[in-house]
Amino acid sequence: MAAAPTTAKLFDKHRPTLDQALEAIRTRAYWSPYAEHPKAYGETAAPDGQAAFDALRDQRFALDQPGTDDWVGEEVSPYGPALGITYPHPDADRLLPAMRAAMPAWRDAGPLTRALACLEILARINARSHEFAHAVMHTSGQAFMMAFQAGGPHAQDRGLEAVAYAYAEQVRTPEAANWSKPQGKRDPLNLSKSFTSVPRGVSLLIGCNTFPTWNGYPGLFASLATGNAVLVKPHPRAVLPLALTVRVAREVLSEAGFDPDLVCLAVDRPGEGLAKTLAVRPEVRLIDYTGSTAFGDWLEANARQAQVFTEKAGVNSVVIDSTDDYKGMLGNLAFSLSLYTGQMCTTPQNLLIPRQGITTESGPKSYDEVVADLAGAVGKLLGDDARANALLGAVVNPQVKERIDAAPKLGEVALPSRQVTNPEFPDATVRTPVMVKLDGARKLWDSPGADAPYLSECFGPISFAVAVDSTADAVDLLRRTVREKGAMTVGAYTTSPDVERLVEEACLEECAQLSLNLTGGVYVNQTAAFSDFHGSGGNPAANAALCDGAFVASRFRTVEVRRPE
Amino acid sequence: MAAAPTTAKLFDKHRPTLDQALEAIRTRAYWSPYAEHPKAYGETAAPDGQAAFDALRDQRFALDQPGTDDWVGEEVSPYGPALGITYPHPDADRLLPAMRAAMPAWRDAGPLTRALACLEILARINARSHEFAHAVMHTSGQAFMMAFQAGGPHAQDRGLEAVAYAYAEQVRTPEAANWSKPQGKRDPLNLSKSFTSVPRGVSLLIGCNTFPTWNGYPGLFASLATGNAVLVKPHPRAVLPLALTVRVAREVLSEAGFDPDLVCLAVDRPGEGLAKTLAVRPEVRLIDYTGSTAFGDWLEANARQAQVFTEKAGVNSVVIDSTDDYKGMLGNLAFSLSLYTGQMCTTPQNLLIPRQGITTESGPKSYDEVVADLAGAVGKLLGDDARANALLGAVVNPQVKERIDAAPKLGEVALPSRQVTNPEFPDATVRTPVMVKLDGARKLWDSPGADAPYLSECFGPISFAVAVDSTADAVDLLRRTVREKGAMTVGAYTTSPDVERLVEEACLEECAQLSLNLTGGVYVNQTAAFSDFHGSGGNPAANAALCDGAFVASRFRTVEVRRPE
Repeated sequence: MAAAPTTAKLFDKHRPTLDQALEAIRTRAYWSPYAEHPKAYGETAAPDGQAAFDALRDQRFALDQPGTDDWVGEEVSPYGPALGITYPHPDADRLLPAMRAAMPAWRDAGPLTRALACLEILARINARSHEFAHAVMHTSGQAFMMAFQAGGPHAQDRGLEAVAYAYAEQVRTPEAANWSKPQGKRDPLNLSKSFTSVPRGVSLLIGCNTFPTWNGYPGLFASLATGNAVLVKPHPRAVLPLALTVRVAREVLSEAGFDPDLVCLAVDRPGEGLAKTLAVRPEVRLIDYTGSTAFGDWLEANARQAQVFTEKAGVNSVVIDSTDDYKGMLGNLAFSLSLYTGQMCTTPQNLLIPRQGITTESGPKSYDEVVADLAGAVGKLLGDDARANALLGAVVNPQVKERIDAAPKLGEVALPSRQVTNPEFPDATVRTPVMVKLDGARKLWDSPGADAPYLSECFGPISFAVAVDSTADAVDLLRRTVREKGAMTVGAYTTSPDVERLVEEACLEECAQLSLNLTGGVYVNQTAAFSDFHGSGGNPAANAALCDGAFVASRFRTVEVRRPE
Repeated sequence: MAAAPTTAKLFDKHRPTLDQALEAIRTRAYWSPYAEHPKAYGETAAPDGQAAFDALRDQRFALDQPGTDDWVGEEVSPYGPALGITYPHPDADRLLPAMRAAMPAWRDAGPLTRALACLEILARINARSHEFAHAVMHTSGQAFMMAFQAGGPHAQDRGLEAVAYAYAEQVRTPEAANWSKPQGKRDPLNLSKSFTSVPRGVSLLIGCNTFPTWNGYPGLFASLATGNAVLVKPHPRAVLPLALTVRVAREVLSEAGFDPDLVCLAVDRPGEGLAKTLAVRPEVRLIDYTGSTAFGDWLEANARQAQVFTEKAGVNSVVIDSTDDYKGMLGNLAFSLSLYTGQMCTTPQNLLIPRQGITTESGPKSYDEVVADLAGAVGKLLGDDARANALLGAVVNPQVKERIDAAPKLGEVALPSRQVTNPEFPDATVRTPVMVKLDGARKLWDSPGADAPYLSECFGPISFAVAVDSTADAVDLLRRTVREKGAMTVGAYTTSPDVERLVEEACLEECAQLSLNLTGGVYVNQTAAFSDFHGSGGNPAANAALCDGAFVASRFRTVEVRRPE
């Protein structure tokens, strides 16, 4: 079954975009088809998006999917107001068979039609980026500009990147081949062979609270583009962005003549633990998950019938050895620690600073000076409340606030957290980062039972200025935390080629992504689709990278039919 | 570290072969660089190979690898004589760290040097194909010609195919990229990025008894080509072919200036269960396994620190609906049932034949006629003892013999097994296939608790002529066995386009590889590297296919280092 004729024409519009995406993942140069500035979307886009978001509130979010046995939802914006939206709760025994039944025609459509349909879904999501920005903002607590960019075009980039990888992987094998084996003087053996990419089954996306679209789109689009049906189980606090995504996907699939049940939504009753139930269903053969290590480990141990892709927790470190741009380093780090109140899986936590201080272009700086100057840089960056609100957003959940408040018990506070007033949303919890000085003497961490605070993740805007005995010790501590706890990012500042090599070798051996000497407008916690890998898949923070061949290759299988010619 | 200059020149000789392999996996046309006829290897190759094999017997198989704490080995040829060879037994606490230490330089050599080194290993193995043939014959029980071809050039093909996939996967990402993001009127953001393929760790190959090289080479070469060290743990009854492989690999690596401990051998003490111990070592991050479902399931459940690739058991079926070449069908099936005494993971077991018979070019044939004619075809094929010995080889282990002897208890015997005398090896157990008639009435298999013999694997030369109520029932029974027990192969004979579509759809949905209407010199149980996939990876018989992107993509990770330009 091919797409309906009018839709086929529409899809053909996307072919150049697909080709550019394929070229971008090959060269890894800068590229994005989705404008990241809100003003690029037209004069009425902002008010239209606001109005569209407002119209969703205090309503049922209707989806014509089968097997709905209840309407559930209890999202409350981190900025204060309850969203008042309810969503379909599934009877899995009815929904999952309907999703399976939708797959054969989608499989028969082939990799190119599937890729172009995915690009049409992304294009329609892109056109509604303002509406999505409000949905992301009021579920994740991100400030508007970040919700717009990371939740909109940057998330769409990651989705498109996954589609490109999925398409490329499927077309590595031709649809058909003629095989002729010489037999000396006898006639050759001739076979005609066909090769079909077939789906694994239902793919379950378990969404996260902080980046529902950015972390959700790669798995969703990789699975859909490889022929699977996708069941989207959002985080109970961040349903709306993914519910909108499901709605758009169903519209596009329907219009193209496919069964919309290829993409369905599943929302929890309070405390139901629906993800656990769905994850072990025999129909579910793929799972994408972003969230806590505990549940990620549970999935890997229990959802044995499925291929499980997880992004869990990690301990991100920055080695501070030396710099020839002290001010640039401080500004860059201050921004990284502050952005989205340090609630990114890529935010640095451990700042590893030699106890004897560092060298800079303006002379040596003691450990205390570096820490005080960095605290000062954060204070200056967030000194203005309007700017602070625009950078920080709101605290996403009470656990983060508890960790901020508990941080001073861990050590000497170098930078206290303060509450920032948000005039637009007076009920929002907006907090600046806290930084704590900790002793990184080797004996405190170089034994199996060591339990220094910097050996574990402390998710939120809490960083540790760890006084280590030397840069070499910093690299050893880095190795230990990456190996045992994982890391999504590693940063390092050094003017020494030897130290650079030391840190690089540690990252190659422990399999962590490294940013060196960032002092300008690129931050350790940001990655760009088509060029940067998000995570490595090779340390405990994540078993997959966004996005590479391994992220898509096992989402489908190739079935061969051979017959004599 | 690059290869030493003289070796680099040698490696360059292999570049055209690598390019041809890359082209072959893209087109899937017929191709092989390794001659499959024994006479292609020169006049003295046969006696030289025999002499080389004889010289290995009743000796220590010396390997200069570290951590050897014992010499072990108790191989007895299925043709009778004990081999008398002992091999190094490892102290894993010494061997595994040495293997880890060998990896950084191998990683730094890059994908091309690694691929060319692997091709040099394969070329040297190829030159010794006669010696390997004796080693395979006297461990697996394969007849000489099959041991030569399947254990030699065809296994080398599968190894080269894995190298090609591994190389292609690694070079999808460039070694370096310049990234420049426009910033409107401001200067662009510029980063210089490097990308390095890094290994996962030690890769453990757990070899099988029946095809030590053919089933072992894909995982061995895929892991080595992606930068990992490979620890080879052969089946205790089939050590020699893989020990020779390890020795050749170590020679090539040493000559090229790499640490030979990148490839090491680990042989069990009797009853030690060394595979279980090694599989859960933290250093082991990849495992390739071919063998029983029970141990494959154990590995998947317990070796959680590793990515596990398994080929386990399955129930292979042939749907016999109709044919326009009755004699060709019978001859083709008779060969498939007989080859290597039905001890291939791809040998058909269930012959699904409608109770009311089938149509052929010479009129209808009843179920009883089809079964009798097939039994007759097998009998004729194996009527001459010399030819029977050349096709059958020897029974690989006592369990297979027990199953042959127990088969008559399952139902009416359509074809009894007979002992064939082998004048050269009078102690060999050589048995012809047994075929049993079984009732395939729907009520006997279409319920959850059904336990008809054809619902499980009965490994060895035992086939079931299952009388089903209709071709549609045959396809339903096929679906059930593939879904629950898996299948490496499915065959079908039909002249009806509707039946063809029905079987194809079943194979696409249950993810099984299908051969249609084979009547000539290609058999359902044989696959050709570079063109055919061995297994699908999508049903319980195997979680991986030989060879596709999924087989190599997760054997390495890509580490990015980015810095301002």
